[in-house]
Amino acid sequence: MNRPRLLTSADQAVLPLLIGIDLGGTNIKIGLLDEQGTVLADLAVPTEVSEGPAKGVRRMAAGIDLVLAQAKCSRRDVARIGLATPGSMDIPAGQLLHPHNLPGWFNFPIRDALSKAAQLPVTFANDASAAAYGEFWQGTGRQYHSMILLTLGTGVGGGIIIGDVNIVGEQGAAAECGHVVIDTRDDARVCPCGGLGHLEAYAGATAVVTRTQEALDAGRRSSLTDQLAGGETLTPRLIAQEAEVGDELSWEIIETTARYLGAGIITLIHVINPSGVVLGGAMTFGGAGSTLGQKFLACVIDEVQTRGLKVTTRDLRIEFASLGGDAGYIGAAGLARLDYLKQSFQTPRVEQ
Amino acid sequence: MNRPRLLTSADQAVLPLLIGIDLGGTNIKIGLLDEQGTVLADLAVPTEVSEGPAKGVRRMAAGIDLVLAQAKCSRRDVARIGLATPGSMDIPAGQLLHPHNLPGWFNFPIRDALSKAAQLPVTFANDASAAAYGEFWQGTGRQYHSMILLTLGTGVGGGIIIGDVNIVGEQGAAAECGHVVIDTRDDARVCPCGGLGHLEAYAGATAVVTRTQEALDAGRRSSLTDQLAGGETLTPRLIAQEAEVGDELSWEIIETTARYLGAGIITLIHVINPSGVVLGGAMTFGGAGSTLGQKFLACVIDEVQTRGLKVTTRDLRIEFASLGGDAGYIGAAGLARLDYLKQSFQTPRVEQ
Repeated sequence: MNRPRLLTSADQAVLPLLIGIDLGGTNIKIGLLDEQGTVLADLAVPTEVSEGPAKGVRRMAAGIDLVLAQAKCSRRDVARIGLATPGSMDIPAGQLLHPHNLPGWFNFPIRDALSKAAQLPVTFANDASAAAYGEFWQGTGRQYHSMILLTLGTGVGGGIIIGDVNIVGEQGAAAECGHVVIDTRDDARVCPCGGLGHLEAYAGATAVVTRTQEALDAGRRSSLTDQLAGGETLTPRLIAQEAEVGDELSWEIIETTARYLGAGIITLIHVINPSGVVLGGAMTFGGAGSTLGQKFLACVIDEVQTRGLKVTTRDLRIEFASLGGDAGYIGAAGLARLDYLKQSFQTPRVEQ
Repeated sequence: MNRPRLLTSADQAVLPLLIGIDLGGTNIKIGLLDEQGTVLADLAVPTEVSEGPAKGVRRMAAGIDLVLAQAKCSRRDVARIGLATPGSMDIPAGQLLHPHNLPGWFNFPIRDALSKAAQLPVTFANDASAAAYGEFWQGTGRQYHSMILLTLGTGVGGGIIIGDVNIVGEQGAAAECGHVVIDTRDDARVCPCGGLGHLEAYAGATAVVTRTQEALDAGRRSSLTDQLAGGETLTPRLIAQEAEVGDELSWEIIETTARYLGAGIITLIHVINPSGVVLGGAMTFGGAGSTLGQKFLACVIDEVQTRGLKVTTRDLRIEFASLGGDAGYIGAAGLARLDYLKQSFQTPRVEQ
């Protein structure tokens, strides 16, 4: 499972630093990392989407100066910036296309704008790919040779890394793990993307809430009914809370979600045959630190082990992500590091 | 869609030849190719599985001498052999494990045995991967940057190539395209591998025959009934024949098969986002040269275009394979060429 490191420790002393940026609809996370992936400084600034992309880029550049000041470094110490943004995007062109989370930032040439503002070269990546690379480089996937990340949130996103290579696809749309088909019936659930029977239509947070509401509407008894009558909103968090105090329907919903995820994971591992699958995002029902999260994970693993091809499941690891909301900027910095190393191997590197 | 060639024409003059071998349960196909992929000579010898692997390897070595003699070449003109075999196999170890089609050849170290017998280095590959690389290098996928091959036969196999890299997986079990899950119902069809709801359980030749028999047993009227009463066996070929003369059930079965394949392809392109998907194998209902085959392909394309994510389907090509049964040995030679080129780039190459 161990993979060769790209550089020996002797090389690391001469390598400059990296900036990772994860641009979200609410916050911009910025981190300063060394070549080994250690975070030297980080911060989050509000995105203020409504102010538009030009001001957003200026805010990123100011944020870069702040993290550098925190670590008592200057821009000259930095080799490269990695910028992760939500899709849709045109990676070769360095452009945002129509990111749902960034209304008003459509068709903006963000890579070159940031490069100009910060006076540094920029590696541009999808945020899910960056998070996958972050977990692969510094998180749960540290010991993997290849990895699939599933991010469980409102939707289901993902990233695929094979031997330090980020699988991006011809239009930058590979690893759309929420859009594997798990049901071909004509009455299969409709995905937010319009597709029929996609994993996201069953295992995204929106789908989990819908399935629960349907069960309640059909007359299923549940302590959720009292919570909702008391003014609570139906969310995966509320479902997790009620499952923890023994509500049968709530646990059933979580278990079925695990089963759907298992079906999607089986398909993914039969296509990629990776070292491991990592589950990240907000909707992990408590995650690694909770009994419920561990029970949820055990159901996912059981589904995959019971129904997957043995050759692909025998040595497979399925684990929770470990970097939380930092995976995106750490991975963006990691992808920038790869681009920097590629350049360094192409032209003789001058020792400083 | 064009991809850079690895070598310029100036390099080609000095490059030696390649041998490609496709080991099947019935025949061993052997070809001699130049670096550009032109087949200089080829032949097929019977595998004679029952005589065991040691004799099989001697038969391969003798076959190599025959193709060399056909082309008036010697072993010194050959850089490397590419050997494609059916799974299961351990690629890093160069061993057959338990190939269903080769009973008695279990756990045999075939790569080194062939290398010793032929006195040439051997690149070892799965036959579906090799066929995929063959179509990518010299067939339908010539202009693609990345490709998925689906081989439609008794089962559904596959191969994935991304930018000249063959995706093999951690245990050599990537691209098990027949084992993407397309139905998660508890009463989903059981795959020959034991899994529930896999594509192969719906769209493999065995499944197509089963689905047809079920419809006949349920009392569906069809000209197939007369054919079967007349002593014919129910096969995809017979179903195609009856569909061609207007049998409604036969066409319905083919159309549904196309729809199932479409569901599997949607999942695959949402994971890989390739330039193209190529359909090969025996069960293409007539393939490129027939009206029925084209109608079948049109249904697959319609299903994918209607239900796939637009970003992944917009520029996607879905086409029939063009190398037929030669794809395996051509691809094996192509993979051997890649290994030879890798070596050549690692050590200075001496001009001859």
